This record gives sequence, structure tokens and C-alpha cells, in this order.
Amino acid sequence: MRAAYQAILWILATFAFANQAHAETGYDLWLRYQPLDASTVQRVAPKLRYVVADGSRPTIRAALDELDRGLAGLIGSAPAHASAVRGEGGVVLATAGSPLLAGMKLPLAALGREGFLLRTTTIGGAKVTLIAANSDTGLLYGSFRLLKLLQLRAPIDALDVQDAPKLQLRVLDHWDNLDRYVERGYAGQSLWDWQKLPGYKDPRYTDYARANASIGINAVVPNNVNANADILTAPYLQKVKALAEVFRPYGIRIYLTARFSAPIEIGGLKTADPLDPAVRAWWKAKADEIYAVIPDFGGFLVKANSEGQPGPSDYKRSHADGANMLADALAPHGGVVMWRAFVYSEHNDADRHKQANDEFVPLDGKFRDNVLLQVKNGAIDFQPREPFHPLFGAMPKTPLMLEVQITKEYLGFATHLAYLGTMWEEVLESDTFRPRAGSTVAKVLETPVAPKALTGMAGVANIGTDVNWSGSQFDQANWYAYGRLAWDPDAKAEDIARDWARLTWSPDPAVVTPIVAMMLESREAVVNYMTPLGLGHVMATGHHYGPGPWVSDLARPEWNPTYYHRADADGIGFDRTPTGTNALGQYAPQVAKRWGDLKTVPDSLLLWFHHVPWDYRLRSGETLWNSLIAHYDTGIATVEGMQRRWAGLEGKVDARRWAEVRDFLAIQRQEAQWWRDASIAYWQSLSKRPLPAGHLAPPRPLSYYEAIRTPHAPGNGK
Amino acid sequence: MRAAYQAILWILATFAFANQAHAETGYDLWLRYQPLDASTVQRVAPKLRYVVADGSRPTIRAALDELDRGLAGLIGSAPAHASAVRGEGGVVLATAGSPLLAGMKLPLAALGREGFLLRTTTIGGAKVTLIAANSDTGLLYGSFRLLKLLQLRAPIDALDVQDAPKLQLRVLDHWDNLDRYVERGYAGQSLWDWQKLPGYKDPRYTDYARANASIGINAVVPNNVNANADILTAPYLQKVKALAEVFRPYGIRIYLTARFSAPIEIGGLKTADPLDPAVRAWWKAKADEIYAVIPDFGGFLVKANSEGQPGPSDYKRSHADGANMLADALAPHGGVVMWRAFVYSEHNDADRHKQANDEFVPLDGKFRDNVLLQVKNGAIDFQPREPFHPLFGAMPKTPLMLEVQITKEYLGFATHLAYLGTMWEEVLESDTFRPRAGSTVAKVLETPVAPKALTGMAGVANIGTDVNWSGSQFDQANWYAYGRLAWDPDAKAEDIARDWARLTWSPDPAVVTPIVAMMLESREAVVNYMTPLGLGHVMATGHHYGPGPWVSDLARPEWNPTYYHRADADGIGFDRTPTGTNALGQYAPQVAKRWGDLKTVPDSLLLWFHHVPWDYRLRSGETLWNSLIAHYDTGIATVEGMQRRWAGLEGKVDARRWAEVRDFLAIQRQEAQWWRDASIAYWQSLSKRPLPAGHLAPPRPLSYYEAIRTPHAPGNGK
Repeated sequence: MRAAYQAILWILATFAFANQAHAETGYDLWLRYQPLDASTVQRVAPKLRYVVADGSRPTIRAALDELDRGLAGLIGSAPAHASAVRGEGGVVLATAGSPLLAGMKLPLAALGREGFLLRTTTIGGAKVTLIAANSDTGLLYGSFRLLKLLQLRAPIDALDVQDAPKLQLRVLDHWDNLDRYVERGYAGQSLWDWQKLPGYKDPRYTDYARANASIGINAVVPNNVNANADILTAPYLQKVKALAEVFRPYGIRIYLTARFSAPIEIGGLKTADPLDPAVRAWWKAKADEIYAVIPDFGGFLVKANSEGQPGPSDYKRSHADGANMLADALAPHGGVVMWRAFVYSEHNDADRHKQANDEFVPLDGKFRDNVLLQVKNGAIDFQPREPFHPLFGAMPKTPLMLEVQITKEYLGFATHLAYLGTMWEEVLESDTFRPRAGSTVAKVLETPVAPKALTGMAGVANIGTDVNWSGSQFDQANWYAYGRLAWDPDAKAEDIARDWARLTWSPDPAVVTPIVAMMLESREAVVNYMTPLGLGHVMATGHHYGPGPWVSDLARPEWNPTYYHRADADGIGFDRTPTGTNALGQYAPQVAKRWGDLKTVPDSLLLWFHHVPWDYRLRSGETLWNSLIAHYDTGIATVEGMQRRWAGLEGKVDARRWAEVRDFLAIQRQEAQWWRDASIAYWQSLSKRPLPAGHLAPPRPLSYYEAIRTPHAPGNGK
Repeated sequence: MRAAYQAILWILATFAFANQAHAETGYDLWLRYQPLDASTVQRVAPKLRYVVADGSRPTIRAALDELDRGLAGLIGSAPAHASAVRGEGGVVLATAGSPLLAGMKLPLAALGREGFLLRTTTIGGAKVTLIAANSDTGLLYGSFRLLKLLQLRAPIDALDVQDAPKLQLRVLDHWDNLDRYVERGYAGQSLWDWQKLPGYKDPRYTDYARANASIGINAVVPNNVNANADILTAPYLQKVKALAEVFRPYGIRIYLTARFSAPIEIGGLKTADPLDPAVRAWWKAKADEIYAVIPDFGGFLVKANSEGQPGPSDYKRSHADGANMLADALAPHGGVVMWRAFVYSEHNDADRHKQANDEFVPLDGKFRDNVLLQVKNGAIDFQPREPFHPLFGAMPKTPLMLEVQITKEYLGFATHLAYLGTMWEEVLESDTFRPRAGSTVAKVLETPVAPKALTGMAGVANIGTDVNWSGSQFDQANWYAYGRLAWDPDAKAEDIARDWARLTWSPDPAVVTPIVAMMLESREAVVNYMTPLGLGHVMATGHHYGPGPWVSDLARPEWNPTYYHRADADGIGFDRTPTGTNALGQYAPQVAKRWGDLKTVPDSLLLWFHHVPWDYRLRSGETLWNSLIAHYDTGIATVEGMQRRWAGLEGKVDARRWAEVRDFLAIQRQEAQWWRDASIAYWQSLSKRPLPAGHLAPPRPLSYYEAIRTPHAPGNGK
């Protein structure tokens, strides 16, 4: 007996060391499946002894694999696989029409193609956990949900969960070039090793698909919107096919960006005019070719006539002409076009804020049914804070997708902790008042413009080859939150943060509470030390790393920070009221009225819509100048608070990830100071005002900050 | 009792699954430390109970960490740490002069600064395993050796090992740009995350240092020889310092490439003339600045006046003028200059093979003592086979380093299995006959040109952020073999392959034997399907991926494959005998005679030195044409043989790595066919001869192969 116990102790010691040696890197994301405590195992294991499922179907096979992996981790043993109920402790996966569901009256019709039902019930006299759905993908989603409930220590003895996505297309856009350079990427190279595809499928592709499926992402665009037509050539389609085969069992369809001039570049035509019959025939043949290779191909994502990309305007055609040509080529195969509304032109003197609206509103109703217009959350470009895009609610006949940027191009890259759930929630909750009060952006997205019309959301991925996938541990939360919000745009950022923290770090409330607090305060910290009070686009040129509010010498006016802040000796801010560009006129009257009136505009959007004197009094009674300075210091103080919270978690989370976050927070603290000092030095050179009491002057002259160059900062466009 | 056993079984099952879940990725390289079998553990564990060492010294701390990690993995428990011998089972680490060694007569003097001694002996009446050395680095090397012996299941009860490196500088050159792009890199991005340095030191840097130290590499150049002067600016030196701090405990010094025009680019000078006093003062001040930040900085590596890089010739100065200026700046700090001999010019009509010799031989004796000339293994550029570089043996007053390319720029990138140990062995064993017969390249490297003169070897790294480090499992062997040969240029490629296979895959002879066989035949396979019979430089342009023997339209003659093979209707090959360019005249007469005579030149170098008719009869009696075709098919057959050997290992090695190698071999097979078909189609267009019986014609016309474009192939120069 003693020998046996000694053996146990020896084995346990070995096991503990093995675990320690495999320090957590973050690779496992929110699917860590760490062992549950013994009492929980005792409670749940008897209910998870075996799984009844048809493993011959690829997506059900994926669900089984995940249940095996998850339960082996959580309760220490993978379930048996069975073809029929054989007593207590079964998990049953069944789609509508399965004999297993005979006699049950399940509300499957309401769940749609991808929803699922998770219920404790009785089959053949045995109490089982039933996962039911209208499709195998629904079963996969239900399996992930069951594993999530276990990870969260939720009771599973009286389950009654129904869930279905509120949007149809839940898309991840990768801005990845074919040489694996990732535009605006801060997490290593592109995951897609095109050189080795199709001959070698990195096992990581499967882990990527698992992660996406676990949060309901069902569409992937692997290549950059600044597109290269080579992706549409036959050799690359074979590579894309290999990826599609990995993704398919996980309910994920692949889409590609289509370079509008591809008929010229790889087709040998002299034009890409969308009304030219040869061009139309070329795209039709290309679509046929793609579907012959990838039968469930999703369709095209297009950036046209923006930032140098070719498009229909090159031929004096409208965006509808361009999108519809592609839509017609895809329609016979069920494909869709996601056409980006991020359009502004160097030949247009109008406020950049207004240009997309001017361009697209007149086209409402002119797009084919299989076209979605993909609209960024704000009218400029993924700033730390922007008001919602005026197109939302303005095109009642056109399916609009929301495009958000998961990668933190304008929020400090990977080393700044900034949870974006709160930012996206702010946009989704914004009331467009179109057609009526309560028509939030979320409602605009969720409400099909016609029966069977498309709905969707797109997120620009923050994923690369870094072992932690996203460049930082906390940036994983933004991938996670994007997926959750694309599934349910009404979900709460705080709930999502809490789920993520529990899954990713620890179920211990002493860990979860401070992490959630950090996440919820983090984005506002970035706003405060980068772009307080409605400022925007004041980052350094090109790579957008660090401050550059003084930059005024770029070729196009709207590339210069000075275009956006319009600061001078008298004041600061962009007048977008009727006395200025009247971009506000593009919003519903209720919105325009509130934001156009200095008495009602929120301080957080003040300088976005108004130009005010430095001594302007905010409603708080403080001057704009003093408040501006205070915001910068508040931003820094918040980061310091995050550092303190994190210091308190030492030893409560694994050492490797803890140290990484500690180091990143120190970098963030340092760069917040850089932002603050450089910005204040510049504003002060214009305002000529002293800093309010209690705020330290920047330690260096403005020229020092202006001279800082970071030529090799990652992610710049190429 | 039954409960206890059940618990053991349950724990074992869990552990087994956990191991399975952590499938091997290759990240652990040859330092896997997998559990030894029970009988071996029983034999060795009692001898490894505790370690006596001064853990306050950083390098000894590193040795202790490695022993902890290694023994925990191998025998299941990390050793105790002790400050004195306390009975049987100790491992004692002691440097010369330690009281622990009092009374022992150890041959430490002969071991040099980095050698070590590993001996079973008695201290204080107890039998211990002693690791002794003249430096802490020697102790670290000895600790790695002990762990290696354990991994190889060698007996450790009567140890008596002495070893010391035969070369002083064992350098890894990374051709990594500051934006993390790796020139000729096929293993992901650069490891060096400059954006996050110095604030964040990726734990992987430590694993990199461990791997290097385990094979004796003691110098790292982290940045590209096609250099960017920014690395020498103050912000980057802080980043380099952070890397140096990680590397220092592992006995590794950091060096940097110096862009010759840095005084202009970052110094604000108008010239970089090495004889200009302001330039000399700038470099001196720069060296002082670097050493103030990194006290053990190693020195500079320089590529000058080659392929567009600036250099002393821009000012009509010699390479010695340039190197000596930098050497003078470094000398007060003990730094060295590694000056590359890879120099050829577009203004020089001489056979490229001859240019380096012409340039450097007259400078013999003109370099400072702290300059080494870094010479590629061959006179052209890292081809699958080249004769040794004529500079070896030709500069008796100048320390020469051998530079080899670990990354497989010209050998199929990461997916072609090609063990380079045999290639380097072939070069190292080549007899230069200078000053006498038996003066092999290895001897030239090992023999200091004067007492205390420098010696060294450099390898161009194949390391990146891929989880397996090198882009493929088998490419790890080339990193390993490079380190082993830099330590001992007389080591045998087969021994190294066997060690690597046992450490990396399995101690099972049924695994080791076929793997070693594959490795030993692999490089010749590549020679056969790419560049048989002494051909060279027939790869596609720029990226060098795939065949391009037809290319003849590049700006500089020596960039064109046609320059190298000189094939036409009559024959093929480059006449480098006295009737041609007489590059052979740069070798010792014995060499020139053997290779210059058609009766004695080996077939493997025939076309490197001779232009012969297609119907030329080899000594075997076969015609050149028939033999050429046969070589291509032999290459393919060898790859097929490797596939068969590998198929036999399924289930004998871990599944994930096995599958990766299987897929890569399939890619290699396919690309070998591409090489064969394209090359034969082209040669046949010139020779107009039918294929010999039994050899299939290329399935497509030459135009098909010529039209293949791979614009996004990795690693191209940028």
C-alpha cells in the first residue's frame, strides 16, 4: 500500500513538473480545458461518460474531436463513442429528423440553420444531455457551448439552452499579403504558408478553425483587401482549396478579395470596365473556375477606388456597377459580394467624413440581392473613438455589414492593453434614429432589409504566427469579443470580458475581477492618452505608431493629422456643424441636433464635431485646455492602475503569461507618457498656455518628439 | 490497495493523454529530454541526486537550469542543489582553482578557455561526476555534454571525457532585416522582435541561446549583412543590449553587421572614406558608444562592395583599408572584424569564380590582427556542390573563417530534405595542398596564422519564428551539424547525423538507421535533380526557387544561369582550365592538375571546370548526355527511396512530426520532378538528342516550364 502511494506521489510530482515545463504560452486561447477541481469532476463526470453521434459526418467528427479533447482536459478522460443511448451519462448529438429525437417536440424551427439547443432530457429511459440542431454546424456550436459551460463551472444537470446567431455572415478579414506580410499585423507573419500549400497543411490551421468555430465565426477572407490578383490564378486556387478543406468541417467558408483589375493583370484583357462584355465574361468564367475547385466558396470581398486600389470609377462606372458585375458572376453558385464603403478620393475636396455617404446613399436599392455593403464603425478609420458611421440607417434597401478592426492599428499595436469590446458595444448601442428611436446600429445590422436578405459583420483579424496568435495575451480577448458580438450584437462587453477572463486565465474570482476591471477601463485609457475629447487621426505617418499631431506635409490633405485637429493659436477641433462641413447633416436630425449643439454634444466627441477656443468652458466649468491636459494624465493614471492590478495577480496565474503582460504594461506605460508629452508639447506650441497646476511640463522640447523616427515599426502598408 | 492502483491507472491515463495532447512540434529540438526507460533510470538516477555548483554565477545558473530541466525530463526528478559534496550521487561543477579540485591533478591547461573535462572521480570520499573547466562557459558546455550522454543512453559510471573547441569563433549569422523579414529565410519571421525590445524579452530568446550553447556556438550576428545602419543608433543599441543580456549567461557574444556608409546615413558625414579622419573618429566614437552599452560586444561583420553594398572601393581604398579602420576602432575594446570575401563586381569582366581571389590575395598580411576574412565554402555562392574556395590556403598571413549557408537558399528551401553535414564535410576534407599535402580546409581553419591569431567559422542561420525553428524538422539537423563542425571541423558527418537522429527522434535503432541513411543520401539527391555533374547556379531568378537554366536576360552577365552552364548546340560546361578563364590557376598546382585534366577530374565537378561536347565519353564509357539524364532520374529515385524509408517509420516516431516530414517529402518528390523535367526540356532544346532508353520525356514543352512564375516565393533579397 505504501509503495502504491509512493508511486502515486512520484507520478503526480512528475506530472506537475511536466505541466510546469509546458508553461502556458497562450497558444490554447480560451480553449485551455484545464482540469476541473475534484468535486466538480465528481459532479459532472458521470453525466459525460459517452457521446452518441454520427462520426462519419465531418463536422460531427470535429465536434467529437473537440469533446474528446475538452473532456480529457477538464475531467481527465475522453468520453466513449456510441451509436445509441446506452444508459445514464450520455451526450447525444442529433439533427432534426434523427430517430433519436422521435416523439420530442423541440423548437428547432426557430433556431435557423446554425442555432442549437442544449437540454437535459430523457431518451430511451436514460437521462442524457441532448445537443440538437438543424445542421451539423449547429451541433458543433452546441458542443463548444457545453464545453464552455463546463469550463465556467456551470451546473449541467438541468440544461435548457437555446441559441442562434443574429447575423448570417460572421467574417474574419485577414489583411495578409501573399508573401506572408500582414498589413497592420502585430502578431508575426500571416498564418497562411502559401509556399507550402497545398502540399502541407499546417496543423495550426485546424486550431485556427477550432477557435473560430468556438465563437461562431463562419467566414474567412485569408488575403488582403489591398489585393493581389495572383490569388485568383489556378495554382493559388489549389492552395485556397486546401485551406477550405481544413475549414469546412468547422462550418467556415472561405472568401477571397478580388482585385478589380484582375482581368487585366491575370486575364490578359485591356480593361476591367464592369460593363464590358469581355470583362463580365472573364469574371463569370473565373467564378465558375473557383466553384469547380471550391464548391462552397463564399464569394468576394472588394476594396475599390480607395487608397490607390482600382475600381469601377476608373471607367466612370458606379460602385453598384462594379459590385453587381461580380454579384452576377457569383449568383449562380450562391456566392456573395462584400463591397467596402471605405472610399475616399484625392480628387474630392469634401470632408473625408462625408465622402462615403455622398458616394453610396444615392446607390441605395441599386445593388443585387447578393451584395452587402461593408461599412467601418466610423466614417474615418478605426480611431480609438469615433462616432458611428452615418451610413448606418441611411441605406434602408441595402444590406449593411459592420466592419471593425480587431488588430490595433491605431491603439498602440500589440503591447497596449485595450479591450475593444467596449468600443464596439458603444457603436452597436448607438441610436441611428433611422427609421425610429431605438434603431441602434445593432438593430440595423440584425434587421434584414427584405425577407431572406443578407446580414453580417466583419472584423479585421489580429492573428498571426506568434505563439499567442494575437501578439499579446489580452489581444486574444478582442478576437473572442468580435466573434461573440458578431453572433449577438446585443451582447454586453462586460459579460464577454468576464467569460473570456474565466476561460483564458482562471475561474478564481480573485483573478477574474481585476482582469475584467482592467479590460473595461483599458480602451478609455488609450483614448485619453492618444485622442482625448474627440480628437482623432493624430498618429505618426504610415505605420501609425506613436504621436504625430504636428505632421502637415503629406501629399494628400486628409492624410495629415493637422487636417483632423485643425489646431491653431485660437483653438482646436473640426467644425462639422452647419457652420463647417456639416458632416452632421448626414445623420438623423435627432443625432445631428444633439451632437451639433455645444450644450448637448458629449465631451468625448466635442472636437470631432466642433472647433472651440482653447479657453472654451466645458459644461463641467473647466476650460478645454485644462481638461485636455487632465485627460492625458488620466490616461496614464489608468495604465498605472492596470499595472497595480496586474502586480496583484503574480502567482495567481501562470508565470510565463503573467510576465509577458507585466512587460507589455510597462511598455504601455512608457508609451502613454510619450504620447502625453509629445502631444502636450505640440498643443502648447500653439495655445501658448501654461499647464494647469499639478501637471508636469513635457521633459523635452517639441523638437525632440518631432525628431523621433521608428522606420521599422511593423504593419505599415506595402 | 485496489483503489490506489486504480488511482495510479487513472493518473497514468491522464498523463498519457496530456502528453498526446502536447504533440511534439519540434520546438524542443535535440534537447527533448524524453523520459529514459525504467532500467536506465534505475542505473543512472542514483548518480544524479544533487548538483554542487555556485548558482550565483549567471552561466553556472544556466547550467543548473539545464541540468534541472534535463534530469527532470530524463529521470523524472530534478537534482537537489548543494554547496558541498554530501555523499554519493553528486554532480560537481568546478572551475580551475576551486577548493573542490584541491589535490586533483587535472589537465585543465590543455582545455583552453572553453574546453571541459567530465570525469567520474572521488571527492571527500564520495564518488561523484565532476565537470571541470577553466571558465563557467566550459562548465555549461560540460553540463550539456553530460545531458547528451544520458540522452544517448551512454554509461556514466566511469566517465573520462575531455573536449575543447578547435576554433575560437563559432558564429551564427542571421540575415534578418530590422522589419523581421529574413533574407533567404524559410522558417518564418526573424526571431528578433525589435519593436518590443528592449521592454519585452521573448522567452524564446533563452531557448535559442540554450540550443546554441548545447552545440558550442558562441557568437551571434542578429542582423543582415545587407545591412541597415539603424541598428547602430542609440535606440537600437538598447534593444541589442537586451538580447546580449539574454545570451551572455550562455557564453554567447553579440556582433553586429556594420553598414560601411553608416557615417553618412546616421552620422551626418559627407563621406565614409576609411582614410578620412572624421570617418575614423566617427567609428571610434561609435565603438566606444557600443561598448559602453554592451561591454562584451564582439565586433562587426561587414559585407562591402558586393551586390550593391557600399565599401572602401567607393573611395578607391582597399578592403584592408576598410577593415583596418573598423578594426582600429574596436581594438581598444577587444573587438574583432569579420570581413566578407564574397566580393564580385559588375565592372569586372573576369570569371566571377576568380574575383575574390584576385581582390584579396594581394592583401595578405595587410590586415590588422583583429580582422578575420570570412570566405564562403566555394567561389560562387552556396551551390548544392562547389569545389572549395581557392582562397583557402592562399592567404597564409590572414586568419580565414569558413562561411557556410545553413539556410537552404539553393537547395529547395525548407521542404527539401537535404542534410548539409556531408556537404560541409566534403569541403572541410578537401586538400588545399597549401602549404603541403594534407592541408585540408579544416586544417587551414584550425591552424592559427600566428600565435594567438584568431580562428573561426560562420554559418548563415536557418532559424525563424516557425515553431520548429528551422522551417522543417530535418533542417534542425543542419543547425546542429553546423555547430558540431564549428566546434570540431574534423568531426564526421555520419556521426553527427547519428547523434542528431537519436536525440531528435528516438534512440531506437529501427528509427535511427533509416533516418541516418536518408540524411547521408539526401544532399546528393538534390545535386542530382538540380545541378548534376558540376553544374551550378541554374535556379530561377532572385528567389532561386525552382529551375531556370534558360534565364539569360538579367542585367549582369554573372546573374544569368547561362553564364554558368554555357550550354549550346555543341556542348555544356564552363571552361575554367588554361584554355578558358583559368580559374583553376588559383588553386595549388596539385589541385589544378587533377581538376584540369579530363582524365582525373571527378565527374561531380566536370562541368564546373570543363566545357565538353554532349557526346563526350565519361570514364565510365557513357556519354555525357546520357549520364546527365540518368543523374536527374537517380535524384528522383533517391527521394522516392527516402519516402519509402520514412513510410516505414509511421508509428515509431510521434505522429505530428512524422506527418510533417511525410508531406514535405511528397513536395520534394514533386519538385524534384519539376527540376528534372524542366532542366531536361531545356538541355534537349539545345542538344537535340533523344533521351536514352528507359527515361521518359518531359510531359510538357519547354515553354510550359519557362512560363512558371512564383512571384511570392519566400526569402528573396529586398
